[in-house]
Amino acid sequence: MAGSTFGNRFKIMTWGESHGAGVGVVVDGCPAGVPLSEADIQKQLNRRKPGQSQFTTPRKEDDEVEILSGIFEGKTTGTPISLVVRNKTQRSADYSEIASYYRPGHADYTFDMKYGFRDYRGGGRSSGRETIGRVAAGAIAMKILEQLGISITAYAKEIGGIAISPERFNLQECAKNPFNMPDAQAAQAVAEDAKEKIEAGDSIGGIIECVIQNVKPGVGEPVFDKLDANLAKAMFSIGAVKGFELGDGFAVAKALGSDNNDAFKMQNGKVVKETNHAGGILGGMSDGSDIVFRAAIKPTPSIRATQQTVNKSGDNIEVSIKGRHDPMIVPRAVVVVEAMAALTVVDLLFENMTARIDKIEEFYKM
Amino acid sequence: MAGSTFGNRFKIMTWGESHGAGVGVVVDGCPAGVPLSEADIQKQLNRRKPGQSQFTTPRKEDDEVEILSGIFEGKTTGTPISLVVRNKTQRSADYSEIASYYRPGHADYTFDMKYGFRDYRGGGRSSGRETIGRVAAGAIAMKILEQLGISITAYAKEIGGIAISPERFNLQECAKNPFNMPDAQAAQAVAEDAKEKIEAGDSIGGIIECVIQNVKPGVGEPVFDKLDANLAKAMFSIGAVKGFELGDGFAVAKALGSDNNDAFKMQNGKVVKETNHAGGILGGMSDGSDIVFRAAIKPTPSIRATQQTVNKSGDNIEVSIKGRHDPMIVPRAVVVVEAMAALTVVDLLFENMTARIDKIEEFYKM
Amino acid sequence: MAGSTFGNRFKIMTWGESHGAGVGVVVDGCPAGVPLSEADIQKQLNRRKPGQSQFTTPRKEDDEVEILSGIFEGKTTGTPISLVVRNKTQRSADYSEIASYYRPGHADYTFDMKYGFRDYRGGGRSSGRETIGRVAAGAIAMKILEQLGISITAYAKEIGGIAISPERFNLQECAKNPFNMPDAQAAQAVAEDAKEKIEAGDSIGGIIECVIQNVKPGVGEPVFDKLDANLAKAMFSIGAVKGFELGDGFAVAKALGSDNNDAFKMQNGKVVKETNHAGGILGGMSDGSDIVFRAAIKPTPSIRATQQTVNKSGDNIEVSIKGRHDPMIVPRAVVVVEAMAALTVVDLLFENMTARIDKIEEFYKM
Amino acid sequence: MAGSTFGNRFKIMTWGESHGAGVGVVVDGCPAGVPLSEADIQKQLNRRKPGQSQFTTPRKEDDEVEILSGIFEGKTTGTPISLVVRNKTQRSADYSEIASYYRPGHADYTFDMKYGFRDYRGGGRSSGRETIGRVAAGAIAMKILEQLGISITAYAKEIGGIAISPERFNLQECAKNPFNMPDAQAAQAVAEDAKEKIEAGDSIGGIIECVIQNVKPGVGEPVFDKLDANLAKAMFSIGAVKGFELGDGFAVAKALGSDNNDAFKMQNGKVVKETNHAGGILGGMSDGSDIVFRAAIKPTPSIRATQQTVNKSGDNIEVSIKGRHDPMIVPRAVVVVEAMAALTVVDLLFENMTARIDKIEEFYKM
Repeated sequence: MAGSTFGNRFKIMTWGESHGAGVGVVVDGCPAGVPLSEADIQKQLNRRKPGQSQFTTPRKEDDEVEILSGIFEGKTTGTPISLVVRNKTQRSADYSEIASYYRPGHADYTFDMKYGFRDYRGGGRSSGRETIGRVAAGAIAMKILEQLGISITAYAKEIGGIAISPERFNLQECAKNPFNMPDAQAAQAVAEDAKEKIEAGDSIGGIIECVIQNVKPGVGEPVFDKLDANLAKAMFSIGAVKGFELGDGFAVAKALGSDNNDAFKMQNGKVVKETNHAGGILGGMSDGSDIVFRAAIKPTPSIRATQQTVNKSGDNIEVSIKGRHDPMIVPRAVVVVEAMAALTVVDLLFENMTARIDKIEEFYKM
Repeated sequence: MAGSTFGNRFKIMTWGESHGAGVGVVVDGCPAGVPLSEADIQKQLNRRKPGQSQFTTPRKEDDEVEILSGIFEGKTTGTPISLVVRNKTQRSADYSEIASYYRPGHADYTFDMKYGFRDYRGGGRSSGRETIGRVAAGAIAMKILEQLGISITAYAKEIGGIAISPERFNLQECAKNPFNMPDAQAAQAVAEDAKEKIEAGDSIGGIIECVIQNVKPGVGEPVFDKLDANLAKAMFSIGAVKGFELGDGFAVAKALGSDNNDAFKMQNGKVVKETNHAGGILGGMSDGSDIVFRAAIKPTPSIRATQQTVNKSGDNIEVSIKGRHDPMIVPRAVVVVEAMAALTVVDLLFENMTARIDKIEEFYKM
Repeated sequence: MAGSTFGNRFKIMTWGESHGAGVGVVVDGCPAGVPLSEADIQKQLNRRKPGQSQFTTPRKEDDEVEILSGIFEGKTTGTPISLVVRNKTQRSADYSEIASYYRPGHADYTFDMKYGFRDYRGGGRSSGRETIGRVAAGAIAMKILEQLGISITAYAKEIGGIAISPERFNLQECAKNPFNMPDAQAAQAVAEDAKEKIEAGDSIGGIIECVIQNVKPGVGEPVFDKLDANLAKAMFSIGAVKGFELGDGFAVAKALGSDNNDAFKMQNGKVVKETNHAGGILGGMSDGSDIVFRAAIKPTPSIRATQQTVNKSGDNIEVSIKGRHDPMIVPRAVVVVEAMAALTVVDLLFENMTARIDKIEEFYKM
Repeated sequence: MAGSTFGNRFKIMTWGESHGAGVGVVVDGCPAGVPLSEADIQKQLNRRKPGQSQFTTPRKEDDEVEILSGIFEGKTTGTPISLVVRNKTQRSADYSEIASYYRPGHADYTFDMKYGFRDYRGGGRSSGRETIGRVAAGAIAMKILEQLGISITAYAKEIGGIAISPERFNLQECAKNPFNMPDAQAAQAVAEDAKEKIEAGDSIGGIIECVIQNVKPGVGEPVFDKLDANLAKAMFSIGAVKGFELGDGFAVAKALGSDNNDAFKMQNGKVVKETNHAGGILGGMSDGSDIVFRAAIKPTPSIRATQQTVNKSGDNIEVSIKGRHDPMIVPRAVVVVEAMAALTVVDLLFENMTARIDKIEEFYKM
């Protein structure tokens, strides 16, 4: 296991700390022949980059990716793809203080308990910079999915309690506001609300929704490697996620079977569902409908407001976290959600290729 | 991957269909020396057994486990433990009809899409009987956890919209009502409500909560194999689960960082948290507090009420599911939730044993 | 890892001890639609069955396989296939003595060191009966390979120093002598030689050769999961194997590059090799030629002749192993070699299906 | 699987091509607290470096390793360790010719068959430079083993048919000749013989022996993950290996059980073996004796001598491989053998930590 490895068929290993030499990922199991350039990956990294508005950390991180292997003449070769992003703005001095105590809501304490000590500079491995490897690998997964006609789109559904309205839902809006919110009016409300919280030295959370379209029915392995089970793990592996739900999610607890079941019907000669309470997955396998899930994101734990904690000498102390922190993580986490979804879907798509002997035979004769 | 395998260090492979010869599991990676008898496993199987009240299926399943390997003189030997439960009440005739159409809310359609055909008798592999293997393996994991002082307790927190009250919370009550509910009054309300729904040919869902106690800090692997990520996968691998949340869960989306962060303080010379919004896990590792999570369970899809669906010939038809089905799955799923939690925790506990070279050295010299 | 699991895509978990309730295997990842009956598996089990000649153990083991899951209407369903063979001739009394000491050449000592105690009856998990699970699972893998036109054939190349002659090589002979030897004359010589050794209470070893035909070029993963690397592991996982070589094997150590390289040439519009020193694998991938490898099998460690050893009280003692033991394991191991080869090839064949995006695309559109 | 990943508990992913930006490895699962510097790794890389004598390629490769993550204040942190070696002497022009045909004995043909095309520059991923990642990761594994008192030593036992003499065996000699041969006289003979073969434009192979000392009894998992099975895979994953044997190896085929069994006896209150025909492993687990194995290495396929082959247009052609190639790979492969052995032993050592519940309990209370 060992923690930093994800996927079985399209397998990635991420590495790197906030203030070490860099962060990166190796992808083992990418098929040969996928057109891939640094620009394809940079595009996604730029979407998660901080410093793009007043609502994310003002840190400028110039995350430039370099492909070190696995590409020849503009295409993947089938061998491991190594991607590295050098850390540039390392100001370790900023972090000398937090070496001595445990920040509430962070992994400082648990890292020390597990490993005996920790790289405290900027959160080390538990820094948000760790997600760069995910986004970079996810960009490759995305290229594969595109080639198969599958799309993945995530957006902020709710921030600080302010939700988008289904009536005003417009994906085009996402790029026009700093929140990745598909609703201009909600985004405006968030902007006002957030400004206030930020000034008070506080932080806010939210809900990200993700829609995966055009996955053929049957992807996902019954029992333990269900598509939804693997998505749940993928999402909960993102630092700030505290909840995950598929389709109607927690609302099913109050629903009746007669309402919650999605009726099948024939449409243009194909089996479709009249509704999609299930969120596009039945028995752990894609059912051909849109796959819809949501992840709850906690407020950033790094806040300026005064907090109680303990230091390594065992004293109760008061702290106020300084530094340039995101007052909300939702807008940037949207990109990470998409990346993790892409990695999960590609892995199970590949897994699904050996489901039937007749198709294997046909394939073997190709 | 291949779907029916779970865990890396304490690894299980489950097998079996509702109406085949039986169901079972093999456990590979159980340490030697654990006292284990069929009674230990039977005890847990009996808790999930149907036919124990009017609120679960009236089918009598006499699920008797047999240990086929891995035990010698009352103790595990370190070799694989094979457990089998023979199917007894196989009335395949009942199921001949559902072979021809896709039941809404079930995996019939996706199974056909994935594999080209399906064992339609009683749901085949997607039957609730599949969980017998999980519960049997979980019983062994539970024995190991007990030996380390760790306990896992799940219960129904809400059924059909009726929730337990924190004031009346009493674990002793769980065994006294047919709902595994730690609140006698809520259980009574559920009984009345459920009777009505059942009579109407409908079904209801609910929420299961689970508490894991006495896990030392540091269990769980940062990044992808976070304790919460693996719990999320484990829970979402249970057929009826549509939502999972840890600690405050979805409520964090509306919380402020200053409220959501749990302050650390010293207590009797130990670091503890004042609150537990985080649900006992920080950065993917146990923090020493109770681990608290919830899973949302959908209403049983098999309902007597009339539903729209399609048959294999591509006709729109109307169906009413006959047979002896659970009008609610929550009470029995409580046992499965505990089992999956136990399997997850044991696996990551074992994984954690190689976190530090100093401890490895000490161990190697033992 | 946990030891009793093999394969990543076509994954098996074997279980069982010599004198427990039985032995068996679960196969997770078998594609749906493979015609499979108990007879298909029994056929292979019968080939490895003891008691078929005076040169193998006179123990009668009536190894009857039962399929417990994963088959419906004569075909695999894509879900786990559980196979069990009940142990019948359990005479544990025979083994009470060996509980107290460590048999030379056996795993008694290492089992005790690893696990603290052992199931000493008939060797427990390290008994040759453990291979029943392999052969049963291998029979399923073989069915898949047949469907793709791939064949696997192993035979005894040498027993007790007596080798087959290339001139007399005739596969039809294998079934006509008790040694699985494709040379009647060599078999006759072995019979005479072996009789002598058996009478002296001793045992003999040999060499098994295996040929895999019609594997398309490109199967096997470069670097660590090379086809030959996985075959090496598969063969060395068989208890008695002490050496493994591919193609010219150890002879390459004395060869010149100009002799050892196989020249390519065009034949009927296809690329072929003039010679096959490489044994059908280049850079870890099948090259389209026959895959040819050999495994060296040690003499059975259970011998009647007097041996020095120690008992559990730490005394030096003399022992003579009684009981009905194989004086040579080679003839029966031939079947196990084929099974493990089949499991390895199927696994890497499946793995190879995601090597190229153009083929994945074509497949996805099927 | 995906090919470039090795190990389950101490897991590595290697990457890189001969003429890409560089080669490297990520190690996931290294315990925290291991003192580690670039010098520790460089030391091993320098041992495998080419250009150190007239008997290896005259290419000067200045393989300088950089640690990108996982180290803080001179110790491993428990998080992934990323190591990179930049390629410096990339003269792709040299290789334009070999793009058009398949070199005999190389992986050119199989790469093309598997992936549809290949990075032909310097062999791409199948270049010997791929082993840099193994040696770098092995250096870390070695540090862990040292801390536990375990040593691993490999050397050339035979080159081009000239073997070392047991009487003159002296490990100190290895560093004094360019062949890693523990016998000065044999090394001298090899030097003379090799010079002749090299001048003739040919290449030679040999046998590497490896001894692992001080592994406690019980390491290795019965059945499939036997210590010898995993070593066999590890060795056969090295490009040029065509044979692997443990202890007496292929000689067991001609031995009698009475000779081949190693008698146990008591010595200073400990159980020891009188002889070591088994090579230190019984039933797949270390038995406390030295673990001794050998790997057969083929002559380097790149030779100046004229060879027959085909080009990509399907013509039969004659070729003579130019460029600076190793006339023998044995001396440098010795370092790779040690690295792969170290990776295998560490992985199974960690695996072994959960063999007994009593030790797990003790450990959990530490």
